[in-house]
Amino acid sequence: MKEYLNRVRACGPLIHNITNYVTANDVANMLLACGASPIMADEAQEVAEITALSAGLNINMGTPSHRTIPAMRIAGKRANELKHPVLLDPVGVGASAFRRDTVYQLLQEIHFDVIRGNISEIKTIAGLTAGNAGVDAAKKDEVSEAELESVVAFAKKFAAEWNCIIAITGELDFVADVKNCYVIRNGIPQMSQITGTGCQLSGLMTAFLSANPEAKLEAAVAAVCTMGLAGEIAVQNLKSEEGNATFRNRLIDAVYHMTGEMLEGGARYELQ
Amino acid sequence: MKEYLNRVRACGPLIHNITNYVTANDVANMLLACGASPIMADEAQEVAEITALSAGLNINMGTPSHRTIPAMRIAGKRANELKHPVLLDPVGVGASAFRRDTVYQLLQEIHFDVIRGNISEIKTIAGLTAGNAGVDAAKKDEVSEAELESVVAFAKKFAAEWNCIIAITGELDFVADVKNCYVIRNGIPQMSQITGTGCQLSGLMTAFLSANPEAKLEAAVAAVCTMGLAGEIAVQNLKSEEGNATFRNRLIDAVYHMTGEMLEGGARYELQ
Amino acid sequence: MKEYLNRVRACGPLIHNITNYVTANDVANMLLACGASPIMADEAQEVAEITALSAGLNINMGTPSHRTIPAMRIAGKRANELKHPVLLDPVGVGASAFRRDTVYQLLQEIHFDVIRGNISEIKTIAGLTAGNAGVDAAKKDEVSEAELESVVAFAKKFAAEWNCIIAITGELDFVADVKNCYVIRNGIPQMSQITGTGCQLSGLMTAFLSANPEAKLEAAVAAVCTMGLAGEIAVQNLKSEEGNATFRNRLIDAVYHMTGEMLEGGARYELQ
Repeated sequence: MKEYLNRVRACGPLIHNITNYVTANDVANMLLACGASPIMADEAQEVAEITALSAGLNINMGTPSHRTIPAMRIAGKRANELKHPVLLDPVGVGASAFRRDTVYQLLQEIHFDVIRGNISEIKTIAGLTAGNAGVDAAKKDEVSEAELESVVAFAKKFAAEWNCIIAITGELDFVADVKNCYVIRNGIPQMSQITGTGCQLSGLMTAFLSANPEAKLEAAVAAVCTMGLAGEIAVQNLKSEEGNATFRNRLIDAVYHMTGEMLEGGARYELQ
Repeated sequence: MKEYLNRVRACGPLIHNITNYVTANDVANMLLACGASPIMADEAQEVAEITALSAGLNINMGTPSHRTIPAMRIAGKRANELKHPVLLDPVGVGASAFRRDTVYQLLQEIHFDVIRGNISEIKTIAGLTAGNAGVDAAKKDEVSEAELESVVAFAKKFAAEWNCIIAITGELDFVADVKNCYVIRNGIPQMSQITGTGCQLSGLMTAFLSANPEAKLEAAVAAVCTMGLAGEIAVQNLKSEEGNATFRNRLIDAVYHMTGEMLEGGARYELQ
Repeated sequence: MKEYLNRVRACGPLIHNITNYVTANDVANMLLACGASPIMADEAQEVAEITALSAGLNINMGTPSHRTIPAMRIAGKRANELKHPVLLDPVGVGASAFRRDTVYQLLQEIHFDVIRGNISEIKTIAGLTAGNAGVDAAKKDEVSEAELESVVAFAKKFAAEWNCIIAITGELDFVADVKNCYVIRNGIPQMSQITGTGCQLSGLMTAFLSANPEAKLEAAVAAVCTMGLAGEIAVQNLKSEEGNATFRNRLIDAVYHMTGEMLEGGARYELQ
C-alpha cells in the first residue's frame, strides 16, 4: 500500500473539486494533508479550463443546484477527453428525484473511474431500492459480516454494469472492479458522527487515482485504508472531553502525519 | 430539561437546513453532536421532497440569494402541510431591504413554530427599529437585567402577533409564547467571538422541537440551555493559548458529551 | 506596528466580505479574532446597502460565479463612492480566462486600495506570465533572496500602474506603494499546507485598513506581520501528533491572543 501514498506525496496532484459548500473546507484541508493541492471551481464558464490544469476531477452531489450541474457535465466530459481520473460521490442520491435524475444524466454522459458512496446511495443507483433518508446510510442497508459475500457480488456486478471501480464505504468497506473486490476493515464508528468524512474520502481517493493511474483499483483501496487508519489514530489521540468537532481535525491531522510505512503496517484488507 | 435532550438522542431526527455557506459545516456538526442528522439542500426543485423526508426544517437567512429564497418558500409551505416544526433564523434582517422584504414575505406565507434571533433582529421584525449594523446585535440593543421585564413583555407580544415561539438570544436569553416567557442565564460572553453560534443554536433548536413536538416551548428552552451550558463547559476546557477557533470546536464537543443529567444539573432558567 | 492592531481592536470595524464558500468560515473567525466583525453577503440586490453599513470591503475571487460577480461590481463601486477601503484577492486568477476577464473588468471599474495575492497571481495581473497551476503559487515563481531586489522594483511598478498598495505574500512578503516597499520576514512554510491562509490575511488586512485609513501602507504591513507572527506562534503550540487541521485553529487562536506589544516585538520587516 505504501507506494500509492508515497506517489501522492511525490507528485502533489492538483485536484479539481466541484463539491458542496458544507464540507468544501474539510475536503481542501484533507487534500493538502495527503500532499495534493485542491482547487474548487463550479462555474460552467471556467471549469473546462480548470479541469485541464488539474490531474483529477472530484464531482460531489452534496448541495446540487441548477448553477453547478452544468459545470459538472462540462468538466466531466473534458476530464474524460484528457483521460484524467473522474470520481463521482452521489451524496444523498436517494433523497430526491432531482438528485436521481442528475446522477443518471451524469452517468450517461461521463465515464467515472470511480463511484464512491455509502451502501444506500449505491443501491439507489443500482435501482435496488427507492429512496433513503438523507445523506447517511439507512440502518436497514448496513452491511454485516453475514452479508459480506452478497455485497461482494453486488459490487462486482455494479462495476461491470457501469464499467468503473465501485467503492462502498461504511462499517466495512468494499472496493471492486468487475473481477476483484477488496474488503477493508479499517475505520471506527465515530467517523459517521462528523459531517463530511465521505466527501473527504472522495477527495483523497481522487488524489490517489491521479497519482497512480496505472493501478487505480489498488490506489482506491489505499485511499480507503488511509482514511480508515487515520480514524483509528485520530480516536486514540482524542482526549476525554473532546468530541466530534475535534475529531474532525484529528482525522485530517492523522492523514497529514501518515507515512507509507504507517499505512503499510496498519492497512487491513483482503481480496475477495 | 433532561427528557428533551434524551428524546433527541433517542429518535435522531433528520433536520433539513436551508442555510448560509459560512456556518453550514458547524451547523451540521452541531446537529450530529446532539444526536440528530443534518441534510443541507437549497435547490427549489428538490426541497419539497427533502423536507418531506425530514423531521424538521431550519431556514437561515445568513447568505440569502435569489436562488435559495424560492427554496425557502417551497420547503416552508411543504413543512407546514406536513406539520413539521419550522424555525426561522432572520440573520442580519436589519442589514438590507432585501433581507427585510424576504423575511416579511416568508412570514406571510409560512407559519414558523419558532423565530430565533438576537434582540436587534427581532426588534427589526417587530418594526421597532430601522436597521442594525451587520449580523451581530447592536450595542444599544443589548438587554440588561434592568430591562428584563420590558423584554419579557415584548417577547410575549411578539409571540402573540406572529403566533409562534420567540427565542431572543444574547447575554440573557428569552424564550416565550403568548403566555409564558422563560429567561435563561446559561452561556458566556465568548460565544459572540466565534461566527455561527446563533446558526448552530437554530439547528439544535430545530432538532429539539422535532423530537419533542408535544412540548415545543420547553424543548426550545432546553436547546438554549444546552447551548449555553456547552459554552460554559467549553471555556473551562480551553487552555491559555487557545482562542476563538478552538473554542468553536470545544463548544460542539461539549454538546457531543452532554447528557440529560448534565443538562438538568446545569440549566439555569426561570419562568417570568 | 502595535498601534495598527490596537486600533482594530478599539474600533471593531464591520467588514463586508464577498468571498468563496471554501474558506468563508475561517475568514469570519479570523476577523472576529482580530477584533473586527464579519458580514458575508453576495446578492447583487443587497450588497450596496451592506457595504454602506460596513467600514471596509473584501472581494475574493476564490469561487467566482455569474451570480456573485455583479455583486462584486456593485459593492466595489459603492465602497469607492463612500471612500471605504476595498481589497481585491485575485485567487487563482491565472487558472481561467473567466477569472482573468473578471479581474480585469473589476480593475477597470473599481479602485482597489490594496491588491493582495501570491506572486503567480500578481504576475498574471501584470501580464508577465500566462496562467498558473491552480490557486497556489507556481514553484517557478517563488521568490528567493537573490530576486528580492527585482521583486521590490516589480511591486513598486505594479503599485504605480494600478494606483494601489500591492501585497505579494509567500515565503517572503512584499507590501508596496509607488514609493516604498516593505519586505516582511515573518511566517512559516506550514502556512501553505492549510487552505485559506491567503483569504484570512485578506480579511484581516481589510480590517487593518478600515481601522487605520490615514496610514494604509503601514496598516497593510502590520496585517502581514500579524498573520506571519501568528503562524510562528501557532506552530510552537502544535503538538507532535497535530497537523494542518489543528494548525488552522491555532493560527486563528494566535491572532485572538495577539497584543500590540507582541506584534511590536515579533514583527520582522524592513523598508527597501
